[in-house]
Amino acid sequence: MATIKDIANKLGISVSAVSKSLNGASDISEELRQLVLDTAVELGYSTKRSRMIEHRKLALFIENMDYESSDDFGYDIVLGFKQSAFKSNWDVDVIPVTPDFQLENKYDTYLLKCGYSGAFIVGFALQDEWMLQFETTTMPTVLFDNSIRHNPNTCYIGTDNYEGIDEAIEHLSRLGHTKIAFLNGSLHSMVSEQRQDAFLQGMKNHDLKVDKDLLAYGYYVADSARYHVPAFLEKGATAIMCGNDLIASGVVEECRLKGLKVPEDVSVIGFDDIPIATEMTPKLTTVNQNRLELGKGGYTILTSLISGIAISKSLMRPKLIVRESTAEAKERKGKSRK
Amino acid sequence: MATIKDIANKLGISVSAVSKSLNGASDISEELRQLVLDTAVELGYSTKRSRMIEHRKLALFIENMDYESSDDFGYDIVLGFKQSAFKSNWDVDVIPVTPDFQLENKYDTYLLKCGYSGAFIVGFALQDEWMLQFETTTMPTVLFDNSIRHNPNTCYIGTDNYEGIDEAIEHLSRLGHTKIAFLNGSLHSMVSEQRQDAFLQGMKNHDLKVDKDLLAYGYYVADSARYHVPAFLEKGATAIMCGNDLIASGVVEECRLKGLKVPEDVSVIGFDDIPIATEMTPKLTTVNQNRLELGKGGYTILTSLISGIAISKSLMRPKLIVRESTAEAKERKGKSRK
Repeated sequence: MATIKDIANKLGISVSAVSKSLNGASDISEELRQLVLDTAVELGYSTKRSRMIEHRKLALFIENMDYESSDDFGYDIVLGFKQSAFKSNWDVDVIPVTPDFQLENKYDTYLLKCGYSGAFIVGFALQDEWMLQFETTTMPTVLFDNSIRHNPNTCYIGTDNYEGIDEAIEHLSRLGHTKIAFLNGSLHSMVSEQRQDAFLQGMKNHDLKVDKDLLAYGYYVADSARYHVPAFLEKGATAIMCGNDLIASGVVEECRLKGLKVPEDVSVIGFDDIPIATEMTPKLTTVNQNRLELGKGGYTILTSLISGIAISKSLMRPKLIVRESTAEAKERKGKSRK
Repeated sequence: MATIKDIANKLGISVSAVSKSLNGASDISEELRQLVLDTAVELGYSTKRSRMIEHRKLALFIENMDYESSDDFGYDIVLGFKQSAFKSNWDVDVIPVTPDFQLENKYDTYLLKCGYSGAFIVGFALQDEWMLQFETTTMPTVLFDNSIRHNPNTCYIGTDNYEGIDEAIEHLSRLGHTKIAFLNGSLHSMVSEQRQDAFLQGMKNHDLKVDKDLLAYGYYVADSARYHVPAFLEKGATAIMCGNDLIASGVVEECRLKGLKVPEDVSVIGFDDIPIATEMTPKLTTVNQNRLELGKGGYTILTSLISGIAISKSLMRPKLIVRESTAEAKERKGKSRK
């Protein structure tokens, strides 16, 4: 477990400044205090401090998602949740779960037994045992990217897919693209359904026609590009919007295999903005989900539910990050040269 | 982020003159003060200052809505917001505004001048001058029932119309109603558009056919019933869903004038659950918007925006309150008697 000295070393400040910050001394600026608190959480100092003050506990259940390395999709979600919780003296236990664990433990009972006041649910699948139990849970429960209808003890938090995909299509439209393909994630996931709907609506918003041959589901893996990209290109797509960054990396690779350059011949846009987006060649234009804010927002909404304010749905702002994988549509270039 | 020095440099005046202007010193002319404030807003100084001031103030701007008596629609919204804010030592000023007021005062400048860290916007209309300014405001701003796209400093809060209307249609469907009419509020309001869409989706969710002759907009006044209810009844409607409780009261009255009983001949459902719903005869079945929670949620989201967490949309749970204005469909009754 991290000590005050570890925090001081990481920030390059004195041990006494860290100590003062943690104890709320008045001669420490609010900015420094926040930075020290955030770093304390990141280094794992939180648990110790929380134990010293009060015994208030929240659970973060996580499944199907890596979160231990800063490259992992879940890392910032967990970090943001813990940072916000720590500032209000909540202790957080991060609990990786399996389908078996859910079969062995009833959700409400588990929370009560362990003394949790509420929970943040990350990465669960529709067929999970606990998803059924969330419909009637009496425990305040916030779900990342899953929605439970009609239960005021639950809230769905996610990124606004409609706004994110609309920004992506607007960007492509300004570059002169009209034949835009969409290689989505898995069929039968709430998020994929939303993004599909968002794509159709975004195309409509920008007066672009949807060609059904340019729509496909890719199961969130890079390999899926191999099956769909050749058909997209044959049908004349000049741009391919992807359900996530991994799919986009597969699409870029597949274009390369077909002898086409990204972005000169084909523009590609991802979704998520995970580290791979800046490690690829070309660097990926993508819709950023701010996962640190998602974690912090998850905490804010969870405390609202705990205090009896029944928020059912909260969406975070996405942000289109334009890098190197998008350029003017080829047809348009041709026309302007004439 | 801009500093006082940046403002001084841009205007070619001393740092102390800027400081005095921002602090409202009496030896600074009103013209210079305005210029400094406008420049501060332009340079993005607002946010920093908002965080620094010890006297923490929030504004609640309200228009087109009564809130002073406990019977008024806005009363609980204002109360909930103030209650939550006071618990965290925020002062709240409730400021009724007019279109003229908006023309005379720039939004960001007004907030900065008065020392507000953020604002809750209630009852504004799409054509309001400030609605345009919200698109680029740098001040944390939460809007009740209005949505601003692409500006991370703003968030829309409202009731989940989809869930509320779905519950109402499910209730009517269980009572055997199939010919359900919808008398909506004003055309060209974001909420009416959502409720229209929610009605169409709710009917689909319960395998009911939508008859276009049974859809109309009612301008949120009871009188609108007079024009639409006779046509609905002629087309065989056995139930009428309404855009709010006032419209519903007009529908009940109109049915009575036509010699029909509510709920024996026609079922009627409102939306909002304002005090009139329990004062009517029969007492109105309606979709409750918990306005106290809406106010509290508005505060929660506003403080999230102030701390840099860009939530774009937050919806509160609605709740169908079944009272006396809905009953088994007449056709069905007839059949069961045979």
